[in-house]
Amino acid sequence: MTPGAIQPYALTLEKFIDHAAKWHGSAEVVTGGEGRSARIDYASLRARANRLSGAFAALGLEAGDNLGTMAWNSQAHLECWFGAMGPGIVCHTLNPRLTSGHLMRMIHAAGNRVLAVSPGLAPLVEDLIERCPMIEHVIVLAEPGVEAPAPASNRVHVWDYEELLAEHGAAAVWGGFDENAPAGLCFTSGTTGPPKGVTYTHRSNYLETVHLLQADVIGITGRDVVLVGVPMFHANGWGFPFAGAAVGAKLVLPGRNQDGASLARLINDEGVTVAAGVATVWLGLVDYLDATGDAVPSLQRILLGGSSVPQALMDRFEERLGVTVQTSWGMTELSPLGTVTPANTLVRIASKSGKPPIGIDLRLTDANGTPLAEQRGDEGHLWVKGASAVERYFGQVEPATDADGWFDTGDLARIDADGSLSITGRSKDLIKSGGEWINPAEIEAIVGALPEVALAAVVGRAHERWGERPVLVVEPRRGADLTDEKLLGALRGRIANWWLPDSIVRVAAMPLALTGKIDKMRLRAEYG
Amino acid sequence: MTPGAIQPYALTLEKFIDHAAKWHGSAEVVTGGEGRSARIDYASLRARANRLSGAFAALGLEAGDNLGTMAWNSQAHLECWFGAMGPGIVCHTLNPRLTSGHLMRMIHAAGNRVLAVSPGLAPLVEDLIERCPMIEHVIVLAEPGVEAPAPASNRVHVWDYEELLAEHGAAAVWGGFDENAPAGLCFTSGTTGPPKGVTYTHRSNYLETVHLLQADVIGITGRDVVLVGVPMFHANGWGFPFAGAAVGAKLVLPGRNQDGASLARLINDEGVTVAAGVATVWLGLVDYLDATGDAVPSLQRILLGGSSVPQALMDRFEERLGVTVQTSWGMTELSPLGTVTPANTLVRIASKSGKPPIGIDLRLTDANGTPLAEQRGDEGHLWVKGASAVERYFGQVEPATDADGWFDTGDLARIDADGSLSITGRSKDLIKSGGEWINPAEIEAIVGALPEVALAAVVGRAHERWGERPVLVVEPRRGADLTDEKLLGALRGRIANWWLPDSIVRVAAMPLALTGKIDKMRLRAEYG
Repeated sequence: MTPGAIQPYALTLEKFIDHAAKWHGSAEVVTGGEGRSARIDYASLRARANRLSGAFAALGLEAGDNLGTMAWNSQAHLECWFGAMGPGIVCHTLNPRLTSGHLMRMIHAAGNRVLAVSPGLAPLVEDLIERCPMIEHVIVLAEPGVEAPAPASNRVHVWDYEELLAEHGAAAVWGGFDENAPAGLCFTSGTTGPPKGVTYTHRSNYLETVHLLQADVIGITGRDVVLVGVPMFHANGWGFPFAGAAVGAKLVLPGRNQDGASLARLINDEGVTVAAGVATVWLGLVDYLDATGDAVPSLQRILLGGSSVPQALMDRFEERLGVTVQTSWGMTELSPLGTVTPANTLVRIASKSGKPPIGIDLRLTDANGTPLAEQRGDEGHLWVKGASAVERYFGQVEPATDADGWFDTGDLARIDADGSLSITGRSKDLIKSGGEWINPAEIEAIVGALPEVALAAVVGRAHERWGERPVLVVEPRRGADLTDEKLLGALRGRIANWWLPDSIVRVAAMPLALTGKIDKMRLRAEYG
Repeated sequence: MTPGAIQPYALTLEKFIDHAAKWHGSAEVVTGGEGRSARIDYASLRARANRLSGAFAALGLEAGDNLGTMAWNSQAHLECWFGAMGPGIVCHTLNPRLTSGHLMRMIHAAGNRVLAVSPGLAPLVEDLIERCPMIEHVIVLAEPGVEAPAPASNRVHVWDYEELLAEHGAAAVWGGFDENAPAGLCFTSGTTGPPKGVTYTHRSNYLETVHLLQADVIGITGRDVVLVGVPMFHANGWGFPFAGAAVGAKLVLPGRNQDGASLARLINDEGVTVAAGVATVWLGLVDYLDATGDAVPSLQRILLGGSSVPQALMDRFEERLGVTVQTSWGMTELSPLGTVTPANTLVRIASKSGKPPIGIDLRLTDANGTPLAEQRGDEGHLWVKGASAVERYFGQVEPATDADGWFDTGDLARIDADGSLSITGRSKDLIKSGGEWINPAEIEAIVGALPEVALAAVVGRAHERWGERPVLVVEPRRGADLTDEKLLGALRGRIANWWLPDSIVRVAAMPLALTGKIDKMRLRAEYG
């Protein structure tokens, strides 16, 4: 007997917006802007995105080509995503906060002939046009209330987004290609080396989205109003734009303004229930609410990503915002989710990032990649396997995984008896002193918790006898009285004596990388 | 530049139990039995299922072969699922309530050499051994507190489950095959014709499970305790066994006893939060609670499947059980979910079955299969496309779909402006009178709502002039005074006059098919 068969169903990303348009057609996508917001429903957004595909075709973009986007979270940016991905164009998201030099290298690598940009970036875009001869078309996207001169060029065609749609918009055929086709390209922050690109496929993003949608993960529903406070150029906005469309949630895209006042206004105007973003975004919101006495009563839950936050800060989020916080751990290479604490539960320990959902597996090894005998409790190097995890970086021939298919995250971690992950450091930040390892993250956590300390970092300095010895760099809070003895006193008894820093450096402002993380490369160059 | 790549990740079903064992290893699977329950954790269940794969290999079962199971919901049955599917054996689930003749035809079609059965089915199993010469091994599964003579046979080897595991259990390799390999086989109820088999693939069941896990669909979490009140032989227990493992929910499998007292005891003993099953199961529970004054305070939500229930009954479930009810529509051919109302909201209209989740699409056509111009509001024939919907029945060469890939459900339906589905009848039940259609379901709904009526059915009777005319068959409630005038009076003004039944037949007991649905084939034979 021949077995039966199930219908073919390619895991391609136009499915999400098609579903939203047909089954949640009146749910809205709202974009925050300068002084006012704009809104559209999914049915109309889908129609515009489809006509945009026709316009992309008119500009010569074909399936497999890369569209570059360098834009804040907005309706127009989302239309570019679906308008590109629908016919199989790859959406390469660029971070407008990077330097022109960084962006140039990414655009060269991706070969972007067409660049869609937010308004207000003219000097940067003009510089990129100068430095990237492959750019032929620049599309300036609309954002509500934002008036800014368009980039000027004698060489490339600079399009107004709405004029492009009016002139060349045309219905296009979506889907019908292999689900393993590339859908997106995102370069990692590259704080510690040259940027590496991760190519997301339609299948990997589809699976990431449905894995995310579990009630225990991001768990959003058609009755949620979701503030996407993470940029769409950071690992696809953590999948929220896809996830929102898949369930018909109202999406709120904040545009360029992520300050506390703008977010509070958007949350209250739109009745936001769930929000996602890094801690600094929520810190700005909490500071604003403290200063004004304002509140955000509709907000129920925030998903916290990026890096782990001090316990006091997370408690403050939960108390001041009246929300439950989900801590998480992820990276661009994972599309991005690795682990998350369950939705709608109070997190009691800020350093714990939860468990992997189905579709992700973790293991801990020693420095040589040999799995630890005890996977619970002991600290090890963290490796990942998963449905949406990188196998090979963009343009590389060599795999980024070991022979068994595991990817080395570069993180150090512990997994507790219940399976919850705690990131304990970065393997490349480790300091080797007398043949033994010192973990800067543990020292930084203790020093960073002192009320007198704004930021703290520990790097290794070359040492004749020990190989390396730790140097502590601190940025004191303004006006704080911070003696060496206070710093060392906090550490004594909590770390091994030979871990105590050999010297302490005070800086007025900690050097930060473009992503907002402490720039350890620069610290090592200066004090290492 | 070569694009990058994402890791290979085959959508195969051992992933769910592997994940449960590693990340939710101490969560339990509980089986109800006679007088006592049994429990095991996911880590131990996974280990036993893996050793069972070794035992299956010892009995000669290879990847692609069919294991027959004819069993209630139990730990041993779940071990058989994963023990079979892990190495690529197809799990053919049989309903012990079918007749020996029905089962024989299914076993012959599937070619089951090995049959795993619940205890207490000896006469039926002995009959099947007699009628199915391909059966070589029968495995009698364990159920807590159930003592019953094993089937006797001179020909086949009858194994005690635990003895088989002890004697032949051996660690086995799971996965590593194509995700499109068959995983399960389920024959439809076949109330109106010969049974047709649906072959589920690993990929289709994986996708069905992750689509189900959305917060708006079954939305279960690692903190839920899930009573699987739908038999595992009905379209994979609606996916709950896979879904529970995927998120690490505690699963409660009721075994053979689905009466109100047994369910109330299990719910309260185990702290069940979410339960799934057909209306008759919950009716039994509510009747029991009414009779005893007992309560089920832990229960928060029930997922109602099968067919739509009267409004009063659904209201009674919500009020008496203190739960929210999710109505749904599905069929074996859809793995099985078609539509569902959102979790954790009060359903106000029992006849509405909600929207399709991502992965499913619906369309309405006229009788010729031409899509209705207006897909909202008008009644039409319901067709489905989806990631887990049948394309071709077991052993068939011809597809079950049209040229565009749509499957005709045989149901008539309306979709309201908000996208929610209401099933309005079965297309093959329609009566053609004078060239126009009469929908028996509408007449049955009106008559069935009368307090004097227990059950009602309308079938067509051949008529010289009109082609067909409707006959109303009613089973009055005991002691009820039910005149023809009362019946016709309820209908007048609510249906067209030419829809009024030409004759009314009273029966003491409505003929029911083995699935509990009204047997319209028999009614047509008798009164048509």
